[in-house]
Amino acid sequence: MSARSSLESRLAQAAALIEPVLERVLPRERDLFISEAVWYHMRTGGKHIRPAICLLTCGQFGGEVGSALNFAAAVEILHNVLLIHDDLEDGDTMRRDQQTVWARFGAGNAINVGDYMLAVALKTIMDSPISDAKRVRLARVFSDAFQDTCRGQALDINWRGIASIVVDDYLKLVTLKTGRYMALGMVGGGIIADADEGVIELLGELGQRMGAAFQIRDDTIDLTFGKGRGGVTGNDIREGKSSILYAHAICAADAAQKRELIRIMVKPRAETDDADVEKVRSLYRELGSMEFAERKARALVEDAFQIIERLPPSNREFFREITDYMVSRSK
Amino acid sequence: MSARSSLESRLAQAAALIEPVLERVLPRERDLFISEAVWYHMRTGGKHIRPAICLLTCGQFGGEVGSALNFAAAVEILHNVLLIHDDLEDGDTMRRDQQTVWARFGAGNAINVGDYMLAVALKTIMDSPISDAKRVRLARVFSDAFQDTCRGQALDINWRGIASIVVDDYLKLVTLKTGRYMALGMVGGGIIADADEGVIELLGELGQRMGAAFQIRDDTIDLTFGKGRGGVTGNDIREGKSSILYAHAICAADAAQKRELIRIMVKPRAETDDADVEKVRSLYRELGSMEFAERKARALVEDAFQIIERLPPSNREFFREITDYMVSRSK
Repeated sequence: MSARSSLESRLAQAAALIEPVLERVLPRERDLFISEAVWYHMRTGGKHIRPAICLLTCGQFGGEVGSALNFAAAVEILHNVLLIHDDLEDGDTMRRDQQTVWARFGAGNAINVGDYMLAVALKTIMDSPISDAKRVRLARVFSDAFQDTCRGQALDINWRGIASIVVDDYLKLVTLKTGRYMALGMVGGGIIADADEGVIELLGELGQRMGAAFQIRDDTIDLTFGKGRGGVTGNDIREGKSSILYAHAICAADAAQKRELIRIMVKPRAETDDADVEKVRSLYRELGSMEFAERKARALVEDAFQIIERLPPSNREFFREITDYMVSRSK
Repeated sequence: MSARSSLESRLAQAAALIEPVLERVLPRERDLFISEAVWYHMRTGGKHIRPAICLLTCGQFGGEVGSALNFAAAVEILHNVLLIHDDLEDGDTMRRDQQTVWARFGAGNAINVGDYMLAVALKTIMDSPISDAKRVRLARVFSDAFQDTCRGQALDINWRGIASIVVDDYLKLVTLKTGRYMALGMVGGGIIADADEGVIELLGELGQRMGAAFQIRDDTIDLTFGKGRGGVTGNDIREGKSSILYAHAICAADAAQKRELIRIMVKPRAETDDADVEKVRSLYRELGSMEFAERKARALVEDAFQIIERLPPSNREFFREITDYMVSRSK
């Protein structure tokens, strides 16, 4: 069995432990007009990668996996809240090839169901079979990561089609929006396992690099395979999102290219047609934006590997595998 | 000085203690595209009644007010999150006679800013100068009340203009949506002050009655003075909300009246004109719905007073005053 398939099977085993916790804290029939929407969304898949990494990280540092189940489930719930709310914020009607929650149940229910799930996530952390001191610490890191994710999302929403973005702005955005909560499961796993403070800090750094690299690959996938929206590619262009491709192109473009790029990006989604998407795609090709994105993703993975070298030797192989897995897989 | 004005000044003094906490946990200049919207909303007033009641309750049971400041601020933040999200869920463009957050900053920012504030509220509880055991307990009651508020909101959203609602359904809705988080500040104040378990439970019961009575009065105010939406009355009718007036009328109406009532309630907001509102208003008058609402509010206040009789004698006068104040004031 290759290292990768062995990791995949360990992740799948860990992910399977999360299902019963989710079923317990979010019973399928409990709440009128809420439970149905929760499970409509949750059943559309997702491999529970983040909670699985949380559990395996806890195990890596000698912690009991059972004591991390609640926190891991809370991380998965937060992830799904962010998807439900983001889909509405972005006006996306499809996810994983089915209607998004707001498209199916209305905007009001989508907001409210997400809020409800957040409350459940908090309760789930508090019900962890660990000391009160650890519960409090987990709630703090949960809140910090969640706050930063919202900060990143604020940049994402308000920086669409702007002319002044540079690649560093983009990296700040994705580190906040994707990196901080990618790190959350690992940080929580480390805390629960009583890992050294230095190690916990490194896990936070590592997760942020992984998250940023993951997001860059996701940006490029949007132009190649599409992001589970019925095979449609170029969704980021239609939405005018500040992807790494856009951030690179807007810096590298000449005045005429810049005008054309911005013109298409600021167009309302419904008015952006396939020809517009093709124009931007060929501009990205001409300016080498895809190659730039690839180089940047590789540099972040290099950074991650440097961080891993500072972890205890016996843990390094595991985190190298995780990094490879997260950055190379498609969503 | 009358009892009422003395209570008002004590509430105002307590409310003044919350301002600096809010300024500290939500700095005005911290976050691009977030802080501006937070303070645009927060500065539109609100008397910080819920956190003030939390602080005075803590004092009533011999607790240090300083140790309750963080929790009280978290209650106020939650209240404002719910307003920001509810305004969007309801499509309300005006609150306290200015544009709502979503109308001013867009739906995406309104959702995201609310989420961010929730994360801050959680952190604020965790930073309370109290034991970890109490922090955990406060997070639990916070989560419980927040979950129930969302459950109530789910009924509110999905029970609009339905034919089968009865008054008990309405009471369930408002007890969840308004009562549980009205009680939250008092319950938290009791926990922080180490009040007896029995007392804490009574405070929860009391807050729920107060909240339901408050909401019933609020429903009637919508038809008399309007709810701070530029003097417009009948907003609940335009939105098709299941108010107590609607729940009563739909039970008391004959078949023709029922058809007419439902026809107007299910109309999209933009198509409901002043003549429709007048028709419903006169139907409510004919059926005695306003008087019914008034009787129901008074019965809930009576219930509240019965609960207060089971509190320690030295605390009773305070909670009677609070109940009177909450139920009789306009928003």
